[in-house]
Amino acid sequence: MKVVIVGGVAGGMSAATRVRRLVPDAEIIVLERGEHVSFANCGLPYYIGGTIEHRSALLLQTPESLHDRFALDVRVRHEVLTIDRAAQTVQVRDHRAGVDYTQDWDHLVLSTGAAPVVPSVPGAERALTLRDVADADVIAEAAARSRTAVVAGAGFIGLEMAENLHTRGLSVALVELSGQVLPPLDPEMAQPVLDHLRTQGVSVHLGSGIQRIDATTVVLDDGSTLPADLVIMAIGVRPDSRLAAAAGLTTGPDGGVVVDASLRTRDPRIHAVGDLVQKTDAVSGQAGLVPLAGPANRQGRLAADAIAGRAVHDGDSQGTAVISVLGLTAAVTGWNEKRLRAAGRRHRIVHIHPLAHAGYYPGATPLSIKLLIDAQTDQILGAQAVGTEGVDKRIDVLATAMAARMRASDLLRLELAYAPQYGTAKDPVNMLGYLAENLANGTTANIQWHEVEAARAAGATVVDVRTAAEFAAEAIPGAINLPLDELRHRLGELPPGRLIVHCQVGQRAHSAVCLLRGRGRDAVNLDGGLLTWRAGNLARGEL
Amino acid sequence: MKVVIVGGVAGGMSAATRVRRLVPDAEIIVLERGEHVSFANCGLPYYIGGTIEHRSALLLQTPESLHDRFALDVRVRHEVLTIDRAAQTVQVRDHRAGVDYTQDWDHLVLSTGAAPVVPSVPGAERALTLRDVADADVIAEAAARSRTAVVAGAGFIGLEMAENLHTRGLSVALVELSGQVLPPLDPEMAQPVLDHLRTQGVSVHLGSGIQRIDATTVVLDDGSTLPADLVIMAIGVRPDSRLAAAAGLTTGPDGGVVVDASLRTRDPRIHAVGDLVQKTDAVSGQAGLVPLAGPANRQGRLAADAIAGRAVHDGDSQGTAVISVLGLTAAVTGWNEKRLRAAGRRHRIVHIHPLAHAGYYPGATPLSIKLLIDAQTDQILGAQAVGTEGVDKRIDVLATAMAARMRASDLLRLELAYAPQYGTAKDPVNMLGYLAENLANGTTANIQWHEVEAARAAGATVVDVRTAAEFAAEAIPGAINLPLDELRHRLGELPPGRLIVHCQVGQRAHSAVCLLRGRGRDAVNLDGGLLTWRAGNLARGEL
Repeated sequence: MKVVIVGGVAGGMSAATRVRRLVPDAEIIVLERGEHVSFANCGLPYYIGGTIEHRSALLLQTPESLHDRFALDVRVRHEVLTIDRAAQTVQVRDHRAGVDYTQDWDHLVLSTGAAPVVPSVPGAERALTLRDVADADVIAEAAARSRTAVVAGAGFIGLEMAENLHTRGLSVALVELSGQVLPPLDPEMAQPVLDHLRTQGVSVHLGSGIQRIDATTVVLDDGSTLPADLVIMAIGVRPDSRLAAAAGLTTGPDGGVVVDASLRTRDPRIHAVGDLVQKTDAVSGQAGLVPLAGPANRQGRLAADAIAGRAVHDGDSQGTAVISVLGLTAAVTGWNEKRLRAAGRRHRIVHIHPLAHAGYYPGATPLSIKLLIDAQTDQILGAQAVGTEGVDKRIDVLATAMAARMRASDLLRLELAYAPQYGTAKDPVNMLGYLAENLANGTTANIQWHEVEAARAAGATVVDVRTAAEFAAEAIPGAINLPLDELRHRLGELPPGRLIVHCQVGQRAHSAVCLLRGRGRDAVNLDGGLLTWRAGNLARGEL
Repeated sequence: MKVVIVGGVAGGMSAATRVRRLVPDAEIIVLERGEHVSFANCGLPYYIGGTIEHRSALLLQTPESLHDRFALDVRVRHEVLTIDRAAQTVQVRDHRAGVDYTQDWDHLVLSTGAAPVVPSVPGAERALTLRDVADADVIAEAAARSRTAVVAGAGFIGLEMAENLHTRGLSVALVELSGQVLPPLDPEMAQPVLDHLRTQGVSVHLGSGIQRIDATTVVLDDGSTLPADLVIMAIGVRPDSRLAAAAGLTTGPDGGVVVDASLRTRDPRIHAVGDLVQKTDAVSGQAGLVPLAGPANRQGRLAADAIAGRAVHDGDSQGTAVISVLGLTAAVTGWNEKRLRAAGRRHRIVHIHPLAHAGYYPGATPLSIKLLIDAQTDQILGAQAVGTEGVDKRIDVLATAMAARMRASDLLRLELAYAPQYGTAKDPVNMLGYLAENLANGTTANIQWHEVEAARAAGATVVDVRTAAEFAAEAIPGAINLPLDELRHRLGELPPGRLIVHCQVGQRAHSAVCLLRGRGRDAVNLDGGLLTWRAGNLARGEL
C-alpha cells in the first residue's frame, strides 16, 4: 500500500505516523511545500515575542528523525501542483532539485491547512502574515527593526501577535473591523480583555477597517493614521483548497473540502483532514470551519484508521479554544449568544462571577463565566470564561459536559476536585448547574443586560439590593436601592409592576427574587449583576 | 412550616438558605453544637500552618449575618441531645444559658457530619484531632509551643496537617499503617508524593502502627521512637450518627445514616445529608461513605428541595478529591486498581506521563495520569493524577466524563481548550482516549508493572526500546536493549516468545509493539514505561 500525504504538519503528520503503526509495510510519503514538517504552529507567536527563545524548540521532528523512527519518506520543499484522480498520481515540484515529477498513490491524504486572508487594500503587499516558521522568521526580523506595529484582526492569532509584539517592546495598535475584540466571545465577555489590553498599553481600534497601508503608517476608514513600521494581517484564515478543488473534489461555500464522517472526500481514495475541511458543528449539525490544532490531529489519526480499513466516525466540533492575553485568560466552547440570536434559537443564559478558588485561601481571583443553554432541552449550547486562574479548567469541564450532551442542570451534580487552592466546595461549574436548574424549573427567571432598557420602557423598575454604600459608589441610572437585608421588611416600598432585581454579581439578587416571587411579585434577576450590565454597556459604548 | 436543622456547616447551612429561598415564610432554626456556623472547614489546616493569616477569614457567616440576610434563627452552642420522632421534637441543651429545652419541628434535617477516629492506644488522650475552629485554635497554640510533631494517618487530612506543621517549621514525622501515603491512590501513583514529602524533609513511616503515645514521644509497633511534642490523629473519620441511631433511624455497618435518593431517612419527615450519610457509589451502586464538602453542599440543597415538595433525585458519588502537598498536586476520582482487583472487576489500565503543557513553551512540567476502564463496557471507572500543573483540570474533565458515562475511547474526541500555555494539541485526556481505544479494539495490549515478574517466569522477555545511552543509565534488570529506531532492521535478534516492550513512558514502546504485532509477534507494552515500573517497584520496596 502506497500512501501519499500532502502537508506535513498537525493533521498530515498524525495520519502518517498512525498509518505506520497500523500498516507496518505501507509505503508512506509526506510531501510538504515548506521547509519544515511537524513544527509547533501554535508556538510561532511566542517565538516572535521571545518567550520561546530558541527557534529549534519549534522544530519537533525532522525528515531524518521521522525516517529513522517511522520509516516515513518525508520530502520538504516538495509542492504538489495537481492531482490526477484517474491515474492516481500527483504532479510534484521539488523546489530543492528544481525538477517536477509524478508520484503515484493508492491512498491520498490532503492536509494542506488554511491560509491567512489578506484584504485587497492598497499597500497590502507590505503586510505580513503568520503561517509557518519562515513567516515567523520574517516577522521576527522585521520586528527587530521596528518600533511601531499595527495588527489587523483581534481574533486569537491577532491578539497573540499583539501581545508578543508588545512584549518585544513595540508600540502596538490593534485594529478590528467588528465592534469587539475576540469575536468568538460575546461583547460583555470580551470587554475585560479589551480593558486589559488597553491597561497594558496596547492601543485598540474597534469598528475600524483599514483604508490603505502606506510606507510607515496605516490609514483607517475614518481617516485616522496609525504609525506602523510593521503591519500584521490576522483577520482570518481560509482553507487552502485550490489543489482539492482543481481536482474536482467538492468544496463548500466557505472553501472547506467536503468530507464524510470517515474523512473521505467524494473520491473514496482521497481523505482530507484539518483546517482544510468542513467539520460538523456540534450545535447545528451543519457544516462549518473549525481551524484548530486539536481536531486536526484527531482527524489525521482517524483518516489513517479509515485507510487501514477500520470503521471510523469523526464526531462533531465545538470549536473549543483558549487564549492568554498578557496574563488574562479567555476561553470558549460551542455557540455564543450572538450566533444563537441570529439563528433564532431559543436559549437561556447564565452569567456568574465567582472566585476561581476559595476566598479564604490567599490569591483567589475573580472569574467570569457565561453559559448558553437550549431553552427546550436544557442542553449546553456553549460557554465562555475570562479570568486569570482556572479559566481553561472550567471551559474544559463544560466542553466535556457539552460533548456528553449533559443537561445544564446536571452540572450541579458533578463531583469536581475541591481543595481551597483549586476551587470552591460549590465549584463555579456546580453554581452554573444550580442557576440553570433554577431557570429550568421556574424557581427564578432572569433578564440579560441588553434587555433592561426595553423592559423599563414597558414599565419595569430596576431594584438594586446591594448596600447603600455600594449603591452610592456606582449604580444603574434610574435604579432604586433597597438592600437585601432590609427587603423583607420594606416590601411595601416597592413600586408596582415588574421588578428587575440586581446586586453586584447576581447572588444576593437571587435571594431577593425568590423572596419577591414568594410574595407574588413579578421579579427577575439581572443576570450577572452590575458586573455583566456594566461590561455589556461598556462594550456597547454606552458608559 | 417549621424546619429544624441540626448542624450549621456545609450541608446544614446549604439546606437552611435553600429552604429560605423556596419557602419564604418557613420558620428555620439551625442548632449548632459548636461556637461557629458556616466556617471554612477545608481551610483549617492552612490557618494552623499560617498560610491563612487571619482566623476571621475562616468565619464565613455569623448567626447575625444569617439572621439579617436569610431570616434564619441560628443558635450556636446549642446541642441536640435526643430526637423524639413521635412528638416531632428535639431536646436541646443551650450551653450558653446552661438550660435544656424542647424544640418542635415539622421537618428535621440532620447534618452532624463525621468525627475523627481516635484509636485506643495508651496515651491517645494527648493526641489532637481537627474538626472545627476550636480544634484549630488548640492545635495552632500547641504547635507554637512545639518543635516536633507526629501526624498519624497519611490520607488527605493527615498530609495537609503534615504539610502545614512542616511549613510552620516543626520537624514532622508522618505515620501510616498501610504501605503507602494517600491510600485513595494506587501505590505507584502515590510514590511521587512520598518521594516529594521525603525530599522536602518530612519523615514518613509506612506500614507502621502506633503502639503508644508517651509524654514527649510516639512509640511505633516496631519499637522505634519518634519525638513528638505534638501528636495529631488523622487516621479517618466516622459519621457522627449517635443522635440518629438513638432515634431509631437506620444506619449502615460503617455508621452512615441510610437515606433514599431524596435524602430522607426511614422517617420521611427527617432528612440527613453530608458526611453523616451513606452515599451511592458511582461504580458499584452500593452504599458507602464519601466525606467530602462538595456532595455535602449539594445534598443540603437537595434536602431543602425535597422539604419544599419538589421531586429530588440525588446522584451517585465518585469521591473526587484533590490535595496539594508542598507544591505537588495529587487528585483522584472513582475507583482505584486496588479496589477493582479486590472486587474482581475486569478492567483495563492506562498510565501516561505527558507534559502538562506544550514542551516548546517554557515551564512545562510532567504529569502522571492513570485511567481505570471497565473491560466489558469501556466505561471510565476511575482516574488518578499527580504533578505540579494541570492535575486538577485533568481529573475534573475525567470526573465529568465518568459522570456522563462516557466510554474511555470517547476521550479521544473531546475538544479541550488548547494553547501552548495550557495544554497540548493532543491533550493528555485525548491521549488517554487514544490509548484506551487502542486497547479496546485490540490494536495493542499492555501489561502492568506488577505483572512483569509472573510474565517473565512464564518465559517472556523484557525489551527496552530506548536508546543505548538511556539503557546504560538505568534499566530493568534482565531487560535487553533494542532501540526503536533500529528495531525494524533487527527483528531477527529478538528471542522467541512473548515480548514485554518498554521505553521511558510508553510512547516509543507503542510504536514498537505495533511493529512487532504487525510482524506476528506476541508483544505487549509495559504500561507507563520505566517511570511507572520504577514507581511501582519503589512503592513495593523492591528497588
